[in-house]
Amino acid sequence: MLERLKKEVYEANMLLPKYNLVTFTWGNVSGIDREQGLIVIKPSGVEYNAMKPEDMVVLDLKGNKVEGRLNPSSDTATHIELYNAFPSIQGVVHTHSRWATIFSQMGMGIPALGTTHADYFHGEIPCTRKLRAYEIRGDYERETGTVIVERFRKGKLSEDEMPAVLVCNHGPFTWGTGPKDAVHNAVVLEEVAFMAWHCMALPDKYLVPMQKDLLERHYTRKHGKNAYYGQNNVTDSTHKNA
Amino acid sequence: MLERLKKEVYEANMLLPKYNLVTFTWGNVSGIDREQGLIVIKPSGVEYNAMKPEDMVVLDLKGNKVEGRLNPSSDTATHIELYNAFPSIQGVVHTHSRWATIFSQMGMGIPALGTTHADYFHGEIPCTRKLRAYEIRGDYERETGTVIVERFRKGKLSEDEMPAVLVCNHGPFTWGTGPKDAVHNAVVLEEVAFMAWHCMALPDKYLVPMQKDLLERHYTRKHGKNAYYGQNNVTDSTHKNA
Amino acid sequence: MLERLKKEVYEANMLLPKYNLVTFTWGNVSGIDREQGLIVIKPSGVEYNAMKPEDMVVLDLKGNKVEGRLNPSSDTATHIELYNAFPSIQGVVHTHSRWATIFSQMGMGIPALGTTHADYFHGEIPCTRKLRAYEIRGDYERETGTVIVERFRKGKLSEDEMPAVLVCNHGPFTWGTGPKDAVHNAVVLEEVAFMAWHCMALPDKYLVPMQKDLLERHYTRKHGKNAYYGQNNVTDSTHKNA
Amino acid sequence: MLERLKKEVYEANMLLPKYNLVTFTWGNVSGIDREQGLIVIKPSGVEYNAMKPEDMVVLDLKGNKVEGRLNPSSDTATHIELYNAFPSIQGVVHTHSRWATIFSQMGMGIPALGTTHADYFHGEIPCTRKLRAYEIRGDYERETGTVIVERFRKGKLSEDEMPAVLVCNHGPFTWGTGPKDAVHNAVVLEEVAFMAWHCMALPDKYLVPMQKDLLERHYTRKHGKNAYYGQNNVTDSTHKNA
Repeated sequence: MLERLKKEVYEANMLLPKYNLVTFTWGNVSGIDREQGLIVIKPSGVEYNAMKPEDMVVLDLKGNKVEGRLNPSSDTATHIELYNAFPSIQGVVHTHSRWATIFSQMGMGIPALGTTHADYFHGEIPCTRKLRAYEIRGDYERETGTVIVERFRKGKLSEDEMPAVLVCNHGPFTWGTGPKDAVHNAVVLEEVAFMAWHCMALPDKYLVPMQKDLLERHYTRKHGKNAYYGQNNVTDSTHKNA
Repeated sequence: MLERLKKEVYEANMLLPKYNLVTFTWGNVSGIDREQGLIVIKPSGVEYNAMKPEDMVVLDLKGNKVEGRLNPSSDTATHIELYNAFPSIQGVVHTHSRWATIFSQMGMGIPALGTTHADYFHGEIPCTRKLRAYEIRGDYERETGTVIVERFRKGKLSEDEMPAVLVCNHGPFTWGTGPKDAVHNAVVLEEVAFMAWHCMALPDKYLVPMQKDLLERHYTRKHGKNAYYGQNNVTDSTHKNA
Repeated sequence: MLERLKKEVYEANMLLPKYNLVTFTWGNVSGIDREQGLIVIKPSGVEYNAMKPEDMVVLDLKGNKVEGRLNPSSDTATHIELYNAFPSIQGVVHTHSRWATIFSQMGMGIPALGTTHADYFHGEIPCTRKLRAYEIRGDYERETGTVIVERFRKGKLSEDEMPAVLVCNHGPFTWGTGPKDAVHNAVVLEEVAFMAWHCMALPDKYLVPMQKDLLERHYTRKHGKNAYYGQNNVTDSTHKNA
Repeated sequence: MLERLKKEVYEANMLLPKYNLVTFTWGNVSGIDREQGLIVIKPSGVEYNAMKPEDMVVLDLKGNKVEGRLNPSSDTATHIELYNAFPSIQGVVHTHSRWATIFSQMGMGIPALGTTHADYFHGEIPCTRKLRAYEIRGDYERETGTVIVERFRKGKLSEDEMPAVLVCNHGPFTWGTGPKDAVHNAVVLEEVAFMAWHCMALPDKYLVPMQKDLLERHYTRKHGKNAYYGQNNVTDSTHKNA
């Protein structure tokens, strides 16, 4: 079942080592079939070069395994929480990619400092609050999703305009119009995190926040009905720059 | 038409991923035929490994498309502004290369701290002012060019002696005696930005500005009629060190 | 003798350049046969691409060479000290890997700042005290082992829960359930050192220590009898993330 | 003439891009035949992948070209100054390698902070004073050599125990028992510069100078008649670690 989605999820997972987003098996990508209400996700702890499309695990949106001989990623409950809360997203990525994780470990969002950021993220990339002791001791991976959703609700953020979040002391999640688009956003997140860190590491006097108008201009030239970047109406984020 | 220039522009674009200056499609190179008054530029949002010489787009210096089935780079108007203002330049490059973009995001020029810098850039590499709201909302890409030219005019800078600029909160543009020479300068820009950042990140007491005489000596041993570097009179910047 | 262990130790040594943990010959891996009380270690100063499994040197736990035509690693006495003090470890790695060595040079432990750290190390990764003059002038390599063991005893640290240490002004040692597991931990050490450094390099106000509960949760979801990560009971650290 | 030395110098030059020490043509290696009093050096401004052994240029110790159809490296006069002042050295390298150049640009020596440093350099790696205006305007490349020699004489440094120097606002020179040994030292210099920078970039309170005894121990276990590292008496620096 879901052979095409399995292949897509498999290929998106294989992009993680290609783009240097993972060490060993530290990352996972999932995709969803919204009509059937089923998600496909990487199995837990399997090395990338040994993994095959048929190893992907199928689950329903309550977390019940529907197909697959292997255990799903230990972060599955977080993915499911995101699919349930954000109905438009079609793929989710979790990594411990270095630069985004550094911001997660600092408990800081990534400020919008330039047009590279604005081309993809409509404002500061948010970081969640710390999880509370009872959340950590309880249904931890699900609560990780809950705290992400809480951050978006309280901050009045749109998951469509902000396809990334940092979980405090943990690492990033990104999403998109499909598994590969979510990986694309994970690559960009790493890039803007790298550049933001180096702007912030120099003395404060050097840091010049980006003007709001420039943020709007760059975001809207690639998103929405007036977008004019690329060869046609841009419907995913695979082609958003230059 | 312009088959040779198209090939050259294509090859120069392909150097961007080779030298690690771009992520995805975030960069573009153009070249110009000064006699015919036509420029050749990369199409917008096309992946490097799918691109062919015949995909290059030909435009006149008013921005009218003369040949090509694809849309030109969304930054085309900036390239054209530069070609019109700086009559001696023959190739232009725009990237979001990491280290030069970090300085752009900080709104800072790159100070001349060593001979690597002096071998290519005759003084501090300038950063533009922030664009104003009406410039951003208006003909944004053209205004990006205008603000670069303004920076050179006001700073009495020569485009021949300073083949690079940082656009505030955005990223670098470089140029040169042709498309590949402009890429060469983009590589060097990244290198000197990397080294300058790391000099500036240590406590202030460590930073020793370069003496003016040394800047002059290194610049002139590779540029102008008394240059003595390389195997013959150096006419482009492809061979400028050691 | 010990052909299988020699091959394993050889292969683990060859992982050091693969994972970018060594420059030239600056690293060594050993393994132990606990029943026979014999260790197998890399020869001293032999280049990786010229090394063969049969070049591995066999010694007893007093440091007497039992087999091998080459001199063992000059750090052999440190390895032996660790095997004698920590009866459960089966492989030891020493490198001068960049990020862990930076912390060693600073004489600082690596604080637990995120779940990547907690997935492998049950708390701050310790740094030894400086060696005293008489230790350096005396049986230096053995004393390097002694000071590591002292750090674990005084700090009431468990070698099973903390498979890494930094030797002050020198570099890291890691260990594990075998030679390859010890290399795996050396890779992770480098990764968490990289991320911790970048958290610590920004102004203090940004640094948010990880909460104890989260450390416990991540460590125990991958270690011990209630571990639920991966495809089965995790017995080594080869598969510990996502 | 000098075919063997030419081949050796050629191969040593080709190691510069291999070890990531150069961008474009920014580096040069030379070797010397002490009996004949002739040096062999890379030609100026020739790309590495187009260079052949027979392109190497032969000069005497006064700088007169003895053989070769190409111009020698523009830094030749500095190499010659070093060969004349330091009679035991057999190979010289100049690069603009990133981390060593950063220290050069800061006008700072590289302090001995760990055993990696002590394994190769017997104390702080020195940085020259700034060149004076008349030195820069005069016989600049020769004066660059003069100021290096002055730094060693005034600092009572031994070229045998300190095979590297930083030229203020410029970059590093290294030397050794032959062209490849000099390149080996250039690689190590880059490594210790990288690690020292990251120790110095954190707040001062973290920086723990290395104790003198440890410096001595590590230097002497690899150098001099009591060296015990490697497979036999170490006569060059090709095999100095682990």
